[in-house]
Parts: sequence; C-alpha cells; structure tokens
Amino acid sequence: MSLLIKDVLLDGNVTSIYVEENRIAAIGGKARVEADTVIDGKGKAAVPGFVNTHTHAAMTLLRGYADDMNLQEWLSTKVWPAEARLTPEAVYWGTKLACLEMVKSGTTCFNDMYFHMDEAARAVAESGIRGVLSEGFIDRFDAARAEAEFRKAREVVRKIESMRNPRVRPAVGPHAIYTVSRESLVELHRWAEERGHPLHIHVSETNAEVENARKDFGKGPVEYLDALGLLGPNTVAAHCCWLSDAEVQTFAERGVKVSHCPVSNMKLATGRAMPLAAMRAAGVTVSLGTDGAASNNSLDMFESMKVAALLHKFAANEPTVATAHEVFEMATVGGARALGIDAGEIAVGRLADLVVIDLRRPELTPAHNLVSNVVYAANGGCVDTVLCDGRVLMQGRQVPGEAEVLERASSFAAKVAGAS
Amino acid sequence: MSLLIKDVLLDGNVTSIYVEENRIAAIGGKARVEADTVIDGKGKAAVPGFVNTHTHAAMTLLRGYADDMNLQEWLSTKVWPAEARLTPEAVYWGTKLACLEMVKSGTTCFNDMYFHMDEAARAVAESGIRGVLSEGFIDRFDAARAEAEFRKAREVVRKIESMRNPRVRPAVGPHAIYTVSRESLVELHRWAEERGHPLHIHVSETNAEVENARKDFGKGPVEYLDALGLLGPNTVAAHCCWLSDAEVQTFAERGVKVSHCPVSNMKLATGRAMPLAAMRAAGVTVSLGTDGAASNNSLDMFESMKVAALLHKFAANEPTVATAHEVFEMATVGGARALGIDAGEIAVGRLADLVVIDLRRPELTPAHNLVSNVVYAANGGCVDTVLCDGRVLMQGRQVPGEAEVLERASSFAAKVAGAS
Repeated sequence: MSLLIKDVLLDGNVTSIYVEENRIAAIGGKARVEADTVIDGKGKAAVPGFVNTHTHAAMTLLRGYADDMNLQEWLSTKVWPAEARLTPEAVYWGTKLACLEMVKSGTTCFNDMYFHMDEAARAVAESGIRGVLSEGFIDRFDAARAEAEFRKAREVVRKIESMRNPRVRPAVGPHAIYTVSRESLVELHRWAEERGHPLHIHVSETNAEVENARKDFGKGPVEYLDALGLLGPNTVAAHCCWLSDAEVQTFAERGVKVSHCPVSNMKLATGRAMPLAAMRAAGVTVSLGTDGAASNNSLDMFESMKVAALLHKFAANEPTVATAHEVFEMATVGGARALGIDAGEIAVGRLADLVVIDLRRPELTPAHNLVSNVVYAANGGCVDTVLCDGRVLMQGRQVPGEAEVLERASSFAAKVAGAS
Repeated sequence: MSLLIKDVLLDGNVTSIYVEENRIAAIGGKARVEADTVIDGKGKAAVPGFVNTHTHAAMTLLRGYADDMNLQEWLSTKVWPAEARLTPEAVYWGTKLACLEMVKSGTTCFNDMYFHMDEAARAVAESGIRGVLSEGFIDRFDAARAEAEFRKAREVVRKIESMRNPRVRPAVGPHAIYTVSRESLVELHRWAEERGHPLHIHVSETNAEVENARKDFGKGPVEYLDALGLLGPNTVAAHCCWLSDAEVQTFAERGVKVSHCPVSNMKLATGRAMPLAAMRAAGVTVSLGTDGAASNNSLDMFESMKVAALLHKFAANEPTVATAHEVFEMATVGGARALGIDAGEIAVGRLADLVVIDLRRPELTPAHNLVSNVVYAANGGCVDTVLCDGRVLMQGRQVPGEAEVLERASSFAAKVAGAS
C-alpha cells in the first residue's frame, strides 16, 4: 500500500509526499514517482491533520438546541434532560456526525469524553480518524453510584481494548473534581496507570469551581489533584481558565497537558482567558479543543485557532501575542504531544495524518503567508483531501456515506430533543 | 425577468420565493409556480444577504502580508509602504477579489473606504453586488494636501455618480479626526449633505484616539464631531470601541449608524469591547463590519457574527448577551438600515438580495435552530446560491470568472508587497 501526493506545497516548497502503509516514507527528491494511489497536489498545500484535544463528540445531536443561556440553567433545564434521553444508538450516530464534521474540516484525531463510549468507538473505527475515548465518570460523591460508574467504565475500556484498533484508544475520564469523589479520583488514576491509558479531566473551567474547591477541600483544584497524584504527563486537563501562576508551574513540573477551548470559554462566559503566556513561559504543552457542539457549536479547528489568537490578543491588550504560528502549533504538534501520537507534523517516519488544503480560493488569495492564511482566513471548507493513518478519508470534499449519517443523526437528534 | 426559488426553508416553513426584476414579488401560496429561472431550494434555507458595513476591500491584496504586530509598527513598516505601491489597477483587482470572496460567503452589500475608488466602483459594478464607496480622505492637517484630496474625492464621486448604477453608490470618507483637519471635516460633511451621500468615518477605535482628542481639541471624538455637525442619520461610524455612555446617547439622538468590527478590534487589540448593550438600550442602529483583510483577515460575515457574540459574552462575563438572533439582525437588517438600502429581510416588496444556504452539511445538522446554526456553526462555505438585485451571482458555489480574479489579484498582490 503506497500513496503519493504530487506537486503539493509543503513548508514553502512544491514537493511530493510519499506514504507507505500508515507512515510518511519520503518527502521531496527522495519521494518515488509512482504509487498505488496518486493524488494531484497542484494548487494545494499539505499541513498536518488537526488534533482536537477536548470534545464531547455526540453532543452534535444538541447543536443549536439551547444557546445564550446561563451555564447552570442551560445544564439543568436543557442539556441534562436531553442527555437522559440518550441511547447507545444515539451516541453512535452523534459520534458518526461529529467524525464526519471533523474529517470535512481537517481534524484527524480527537480526545473525547461522553457516555456509551463503546458505541462512540465503533463510530470512530468506521470513520477512519483517531479517537481517544473516555467514558465520562460522575459519581456525585455517592458510593453506590461510584460502583455502578466503575462497572460501566471498566466494561467500556475492556470493549475498546478488545477492538485492538490502533486508531481507537480508551482513556479514563473523571469528569471533574466537583462531580467525582476523592476515592474515585484516586482509583481511576491508579487504574489508568495500570492499563497505560491517558486521563482526561475538566480543570478550573470557572471561578466557582476554584472557590468551591477551596471551601470543600481546603485547597485549589490543582493542589487538590496533585495531592491525589492525578497530575502527570498522561493527564489532559481541559479548560484551565482559572489557573494561577503557581498552578501553571505545578502543571509544568508534572508534565500535565492542557487543552485550551477558547470558543466554548467565550460562549459560556467563563470569565477569564486561560493564562496562555504563563503556560508557554513555563513550558507547558498547550493544545486546542473545540469542546462539544452544544457549547461551541462547531468542531472546526480552523475557527478555534483564529478565536484563540483573537482572544489572547484582546485579553492581553497586545496584538503580538498568540501569533498565527503559535496557535497553528497548538492545533497540530501540541495536540499530538498531548495525546501521545506520533503525528502533528509532516516529516519522514511520522504517521500519515495530513490534510491537503485547496489554495485556489478567494479567502486564501494572495499567498503572502500560508500559516497566516490557514489561521486567520481559512475555514474547514478549504480542506480538499484528508489522510489518516495513510488512508484517504476525503478527496475533493467527498466522504462516502455522508447522506446517511446526516439523516440518521437528524432523526436521533429529534428523539434526544424530545420531539419524537 | 422573473425568478422562483422553490421548496426553500424560510422562517421555519418550506415555501417559495418569487422575484420579479430586482424585488421580492411574492412569498408562499401567492408565489407563482413558473418563472424565467427556477431554483430548487430543497434541503436549503433562504436568509437575507449579509451587509458588511465597514471594510477596505482592496486590502485583500495585503492579506497575510503582516500580522501579529503592534498597530503603529504594522502601519508604518508594512501597510503604508505597501499602499504607496498601490496602483488604480491593483485596487481594481483587489476589489474584484474582495467581491468574489463576499459573494462566496453570502455578502450582497458592503460599505468601503479606500483609494482609487473609481476603480473599485468598476469592480463592484461587474461583481453584481452593492457597494457604498468612499475615497479615503486624509489631509494630515495640511492645507495643500487637503486641496489635492478634495480634487481627488470630487473626481471619484463624479465618476461614480456618472455610472448611474443603483448598486454602486458614492459616499464621503473622512478617514478619522486624527488624520483630517477640522475645516476639511466640515466641508466634507457639507458636500455629503449637498450630494445626498452617506458619510463614512472611523470613530474612537482606540483609547489613544480619545485621549489625543481631549488633548488636541479639548473634547472627546464624539463631542468634537458633533460640534462640527458631522453626526447625523447618514453617518456610519466604524469601530466606536471607546464610546462612553454619554457618547452613546449622543449617537442615539443624532441617529448615527454604528459599524461594529469585532474581529479586527480583537486582532489589533483595541483594548475594549464596543459598548453594544448600551447602544442597544439607547436604540442605536448597530451593524457589523469585517474591516479590511489586512486586519481580520477574512471578509466572511458568518465569522464576524459568531465572534461578535463570543466577544460580548466574554467581555460582559454573561452568556445571555449578544444572542444569535441579535447578531444575525446586526449583520442583515442592521446593515441595511445603516446604509439605507431596502433590503436586510426577505419580505414582499424588498430588494431581492438573498442567500440560499445548503443545509445538508454536517455542521448544520441537526436542525434544532436555523439562526443558531447560521451564527454559531456555519461559515461562508455553507452558501450555495446568492442573489443580488434579483440577479443570480452564484449557484452551486460557482461564480463565473473566478480563476481569472484569483490569478490577477495574486499578481498585483506580489507587486504591492514589493516582491516583483
């Protein structure tokens, strides 16, 4: 199995990219001239596939169901009642829809936390992209509920492990410190380490979370998690808006990976821009997430890159911060590092997870600076071709089976909304 | 000349829209079943064409040329040297590129300020969309320069008037109070009133502008402009980030129209979110602008709608402000009111400036709420068909002549950048 992308723009040069099996085998002069599959890259540019490090994929079913509301009212009157109507099949079709949207906007890997994740795993396996999937664990400090949650989480992890699909990895997903007991946090972390799986958790999204932690646990969220041993290089912490400088330092020392979700943070008004500059100065790996489609409402990483840059320039009152190059790295190599996948850049030996962008579009004209155009002017619709694990998932914007996914997901969305 | 859009979703119902000449003649049961041109609207939704009330269209040539810089350094080392290389022909092709990008993202009318605007007018006339075009007037408080600027401005207005094209209207464009003398401001306003043209000006974009006005004129920008008589219902004021409550009240009393440019304000770090809530409470007409492609870098109004909503939720720390419905109105009927065009909503008797959005896309699935999906999930690539003044400008995303525009604009962009 070999694949050749001919005459494509890569890092400023027109070159060829040769893929053997699932890895990039050669670039440029050393690239072969023939292959089983040849893709014409003329007028196009290759960039790494984007890595979305925090989402709740099946929440696509709730896209536009409720917006512009206070967080607590939104959750209790809209999201939770709808989620109570979620079935495994709904999660399967909601995740199929999310994967389709991600492929069409150039995302080749995502870090997901939701329910019925064995069904999500089936959807990811079929989609051709990579998923790191955690069953959201919520015990609300109730021992009986914790036991049921462990049973479910173990079953889901076992099922995903048994798929033996290198693109579909299980993770352990304690939802947050305010929904999961101390005992469960410790046990989930022990279990994640034992199985060698990443740990995915929401941290310091709102100031209320920080204040409640001080009241309930006598310390801030980061100090609390650190005392329980949950902070390490296999932990992906989503949001982190309210981290103090000292907490950023702790993250750096423990090697915690951050998933920054600028669109969701702004839409839900979490009240503070994540301390990006401090994280970068401390050497924390920062990646980008869209969050779920109920609070974004798009899974387009191009948009998240631009909004990240805009948010930090605005919040710091300084146009030179969060450059195009910086947010592009967050969305690619930062995400790959966060999830421990050998991708995020187009280089010989790396996984063949890459995106071919059509440059012959008005919004990408002129071509003064490709990275600037990708971050500040492009959107997901500029993506022409997507490869993941060496396989072509989209070419000429065509993804096989799209119509069925839209139809079935729509019908489950109506059920989840209580409309049928 | 008649045109029928059949089976299209409009305000929650599947209906038909019948266009005679350049106006919407009937909707629904009263729509005819035949027409000279019939467009199948199945699986699609009709929304008003977007109105972009502040841009510098030909700055598409500088897209991505320089980003992430301090405003003054960006202007003096990058933008101004490049603009010194601008030729009339470059402005023509830069504006052609901007019009193409606008058509492809659903914008049917824009308010422009730049140089060589007779050439811009030619580009707009050919594009099929509407433009309100002002030659940017800058005298830097120099009488000789003012005289030359008046000569140029009068010539450009005369040329545009003589086109007698109802889609292409001249306007009068004093750049700002810090670049135009008091005498010129007064004379430009008198002349605008005499000719019945709108006046387009930057107001209170930065705090420095406000502080300098107090120092130089002994009053804030709004009080200064009001004393000179420049504030009235035919004035479009761009940015307005730093307006005080009292200044908002003055705008409301004078009927000044505001063009809010959230993406540009964030990218250039103007330091403050425009006081949207105060403006709405006072009854000021607020519309949306992208600003030029050098400071955005996109002319996509879908993106400006979403970023407007995000910015105000974040800045106010309140997710219920700047709802999807509110920003959608800013981008449509608000813009139409700002520029005095009989459009901005799809209703019998209005100008046939409308956009047909393809709903069969993952990011617009499911269909819980069309306006939410348009504002929070869509991008310009969702636009399938564009009508302006009753004429089809794009169908199935095809715009005649696109390749030539991209090629010629690219070549002029290289010249303007000094690359050839």
